[in-house]
Parts: sequence; structure tokens; C-alpha cells
Amino acid sequence: MELKNDLLLRAARGEKTERTPVWVMRQAGRILKEYREVRSKLSGFIELVQTPERAAEVTIQPVDILGVDAAIIFSDILVIPEAMGLPYIMEEGNGPFFPNTIKTDADLDKLRIADEDSLGYVLEAIKLTVRELDGRVPLIGFAGAPWTIFCYMVEGRGSKTFSEARKILYDNPGFAHKLMDKITESTIRYLKNQVAAGANIVQIFDSWAGILPSEQYNNFALKYISKIADSISEVPVIVFAKGAYGSRRSIGRVNCDVVGLDWNMEITESRTLIGAEKTLQGNLDPAALYAGFDTIKAETRKMIDQFGKSKHIANLGHGVYPDMNADKVKCFIDEVKEYSGK
Amino acid sequence: MELKNDLLLRAARGEKTERTPVWVMRQAGRILKEYREVRSKLSGFIELVQTPERAAEVTIQPVDILGVDAAIIFSDILVIPEAMGLPYIMEEGNGPFFPNTIKTDADLDKLRIADEDSLGYVLEAIKLTVRELDGRVPLIGFAGAPWTIFCYMVEGRGSKTFSEARKILYDNPGFAHKLMDKITESTIRYLKNQVAAGANIVQIFDSWAGILPSEQYNNFALKYISKIADSISEVPVIVFAKGAYGSRRSIGRVNCDVVGLDWNMEITESRTLIGAEKTLQGNLDPAALYAGFDTIKAETRKMIDQFGKSKHIANLGHGVYPDMNADKVKCFIDEVKEYSGK
Repeated sequence: MELKNDLLLRAARGEKTERTPVWVMRQAGRILKEYREVRSKLSGFIELVQTPERAAEVTIQPVDILGVDAAIIFSDILVIPEAMGLPYIMEEGNGPFFPNTIKTDADLDKLRIADEDSLGYVLEAIKLTVRELDGRVPLIGFAGAPWTIFCYMVEGRGSKTFSEARKILYDNPGFAHKLMDKITESTIRYLKNQVAAGANIVQIFDSWAGILPSEQYNNFALKYISKIADSISEVPVIVFAKGAYGSRRSIGRVNCDVVGLDWNMEITESRTLIGAEKTLQGNLDPAALYAGFDTIKAETRKMIDQFGKSKHIANLGHGVYPDMNADKVKCFIDEVKEYSGK
Repeated sequence: MELKNDLLLRAARGEKTERTPVWVMRQAGRILKEYREVRSKLSGFIELVQTPERAAEVTIQPVDILGVDAAIIFSDILVIPEAMGLPYIMEEGNGPFFPNTIKTDADLDKLRIADEDSLGYVLEAIKLTVRELDGRVPLIGFAGAPWTIFCYMVEGRGSKTFSEARKILYDNPGFAHKLMDKITESTIRYLKNQVAAGANIVQIFDSWAGILPSEQYNNFALKYISKIADSISEVPVIVFAKGAYGSRRSIGRVNCDVVGLDWNMEITESRTLIGAEKTLQGNLDPAALYAGFDTIKAETRKMIDQFGKSKHIANLGHGVYPDMNADKVKCFIDEVKEYSGK
């Protein structure tokens, strides 16, 4: 399908663009009343993720309402552990919870490699979205990075320290690598299937990157992200490792096209560490969207000036917070478009 | 009182010592069965904090049992908001919770400056501890940094994003500074009183430093840490800003003696950013204490080699996790003493 707006893909490949493309992490979600309406008719988040027609509908909403330069398929990183044999529950206000976790070799052996059948609902949502988008903007596919998925599979829920997951890296590294391998294999198949279904670019989210010292991050986490990036040659790959300050130089050597920066990663320093080749994505502090419109515009312009007008995909440095005003999100998006196009 | 072991104080002042001094954040706590025994006889954590005899007892336990080079007064950073008029509840397994929070100017106006009367129980615990320690090791006093206290006072509990607190920095910076001022004034009085009661050195804990971009961290957080450090001239000051990767250069300019590093702050890079003057404290990954004894020793030696044998106070890069084996904590402490003294 010919894309009418391919700014994001060209910027991802390092090509010069007329202006900076922009999208927002968690753009399809509670900030939009249109999303809340769809969501309110279903039993919960997981039903929405598993109903392709509705997932496609909310995926496209921010393209229409906010004017972003890309859609990102509405889904969750936790569909992978689920497809491997660990179902999860989404507790409203409390985040996800896995009744079963991976503790022993027997638990590990029982895990499946996630396949097309178990994740067919995501692939179906992608196909529907691509058809309905009709080439207006590219569609971003995504998956969690193996380390982040590992944390959930071992601990069963979010944690401030993820000390149980980190314990395994020191205490039983062989076990850790085996689990990481299985997650990685599942993730590669999953992302390849997303691309086959029509995703134009994929992002790998490493939400818990910041919890590991850089040596461990490189050995246990980035190694597997690298494997994934090496396996995806059909479309550009974005790596977003939140909090991986000490590993930016290593991330710069991963075979990916775009590196996402969180809002605490200083832009000039990150460019130096990551190198001149990669396109950078990010990184306005999402909390800036709580400010007045003038401040939002000023902060957006400051960000554009720091990144420069090429090899940059504008975004927030983290997902937009659910209580944010959609008009302020749109103000950020509009200002990126206007200011970077001058 | 003449100290028999003043290694920590001399290292803090940058003097050469026979070996590297060592203590462990959260050394007085659930890792020790002797602590759990004392704790089990009381109604909860807050009663322990507020009972000087028992607080002194658990403060001294790790000196006897683990052989650390300093005691740290058993207390909590949240005694400050409590003394300012916001009592907290400690929910077992869920962390602290404040039924009332600061949202409006009226809330802010009602806050008191914490004084000797409202924090007398901590000062009494310090006096008792100093008497019972009888000069064996120095006693560390402490307080939370204003930004971390601000987060709790605004949000009422821990949070993954602290987006409500960050909102205020953008949305109502004047309000933020006013609240920060009141917390800072309370903290300065509190730390001065701790020193008067016998604390030989004080540490400022900024647990949520990592949530702010460095420009905001410098303007809203480090500014107030600086005020505190400037006000304490009687004893050395340790600043531990967890996750403040992007602000290490600025922290190096604060009028403090020691800078704590978390386990993700690369040692050589941190030394370069912070400068040669300060003593550094830290920073073994606490999760390393989940490994076998040989790995713990090897990781400890690696850390000592990277810091070098002067201007360093050995510690973990974060508090020890409650489920850790005290023998492994002791293995870390013993190895620091032996290896650094060679």
C-alpha cells in the first residue's frame, strides 16, 4: 500500500524530511474521550486488546483526532507471556498481574514459543488497521524487550526494585539466559508476523532497562534486543530502553534504525554517545503537557532546536499520562509540525 | 565523645585511611533476625520509629552483628511531613500512605515548620544511641531531600511516575518553590538538631531524583539540597540522589563532602563528572548479594578496585533488600575490610 504520509519512515531511515514527524507513546488511550467510549462498552482492557475491530478502531482514533504521523497498533507488551502460557489479569488502577510465574526449570520447560495462532488477534487487528488507514500514515508494530518481559514472567507484577528478577541474573545466569532465549524467539516470530500483517516499522519497548547496571544490561538485555534487531530486516526498528543511561553507547551499536530517548536523557549527550548514524526519537517530558499552552509550545521548540531538523522523530520521553488533556497533546503535535517545517 | 573507629569520618573529609570504611543502607532492618524480634513485639514500624529505646537498640544491632563502620539512626524520611502536619500510615507490604496531601494554598499555609518538640523522639533516640555506642563507631543522621518529601506530600504515596508532583513544577512553579522552602527550612532545623543530639555525619536521601530531567532537578531539587548542605557546617554531609545521572556534574558543585552513587552509576564516569574533591559512597548492586559467596567477594573487589583506596566509603548502591541473607551482607562487609586493607 502506497503511503500518503511516509515522513516517519523516511526519518527512521535517516533521510531528510520536509518537517519532523511526530507521534506520542500511548496516544491511543484514555486521553481520548472517543477511546473511553469504545472501552466502556467492553468488559475491560484485555477484551479491547483481543477484539481486532475495536483495537483497530482505537488505533486509528489519534490519527483522526490528534493528527499524528503514525498509528501504533493498540495492544500490550504482555500478550507475549500470555501466548507463551502465562495469562495475565489487568487490575484497574493496579496494573497487570500474572497468577503463575516462572520459578523453576519445570516452569521454564512448560513455556511455549508464541506462535501465529496464539497471537492471531493482534495480527488480525493490524490487517484491519492497515486496510482502514488506507495509506494515510504508517502503522507501528511493537513488542516488549525480553528483559522487561522476563521481569513480569518472574515476578508476576510490577515492582519498584525487580529484585527477584535481578536475583536470577546473579544467582542462576544459565536459567536467565534460557528464559531470555525463549522470550526472544517468541518475540522475533511475533514481530515478523506483525510486519507480514502490514506493520511498517516496529518498536521494542524496554520499560525496565533502568534497573540494571550497564554491564548486566549489555549481557542480559541488550544482547537479546540485538538478536531481535538483527532478525528484522524488512522494516526499520526502533529501540526504546527507558532509563538505560549507562548503555547508550552500546545501544548505538545495535543494528536498529532509531533509538528512543526518555525525558531524562540529555539530547546532545545522547547524540554523542549513540553516534551520528541513528535517528533519535523523543523526548519531551510528558509532565510538560500539564503546563499552559504557551509553555508547551516553548518546551516543544526548545526540544526541536536541540535535536535539529533531521534524523529526529518527535515524541514524548515516556507514554502520555492518562489524565492529560487531549488538546494539550494536540498542541505539542501541532507545534512540532509547524515549528519544524519552517 | 572520642571515637575509637573514625574511618568513616576521615574518609568523608577526604583524608587517607588504613582501609575503606563500609556500611550498608537499611543495615538496621528486616535482614537481621534480632531486628525482627524487636519489631514483632511492637504494633508496627511507626511505633518502632517513635520509641527511642527500641530505635536505639536496632540502630546498634548491625554494628555488633555485621561489623559496619557506622550506625545510622533507625528512623524514616517521612517523619518530616508528619512533623509538619501530615501524619502517615505504614501499610505492610504497600509502603507509606498519607491520608491528607498538599493540593491548595490553604493546605500549604496550614503546614508547620517541623521543630524540636515534634521530632523529639528521634533526637532522644540519637542521644541514647550515642551513649550506648560509647564511641565504637560514628552515628549517621539523615533526612529525605526536599524533592522526595515534596512528592509524598503532594501524592500521598509512592508512584511509578509521580506525575502529580511533576505537574506542579510546570503548572505552578511558585507553589512548588513555596512548599520546597517550607520543607527545606524544616529539614535544616531537623538535621541541626540531630547534630546537636550527637550525629557525627548526616546523609540526605533523594530517592526520587531520577524522575526529573536534569534542568528541573537542578532548579527544583538540587537548589534546596544545596541550601541544606550550606547550612550544615558542623559535620560532613553526604548527598545521595538516586537516579540523578544527568545531574552528577551539578551535584559535584554542592557544598557537601560525600556523594552517594547508585548501582547504575558507572564509577569512573561518576568520578570524572563529580570531580576529584568529593569522597564517593557506594555502589555495589544490592542484587549481587543474592549470588554465592565467591561472586559476592569478586564483585566487591571489583568495586574497590574501581573506586580506588581513598576518598571512598563502601556501601551498596541502594538499600539492602529485606529478603537478603545477613551472612551475605556480612560477606560483603568483611571483604571490603580485608581487601581494601591489604
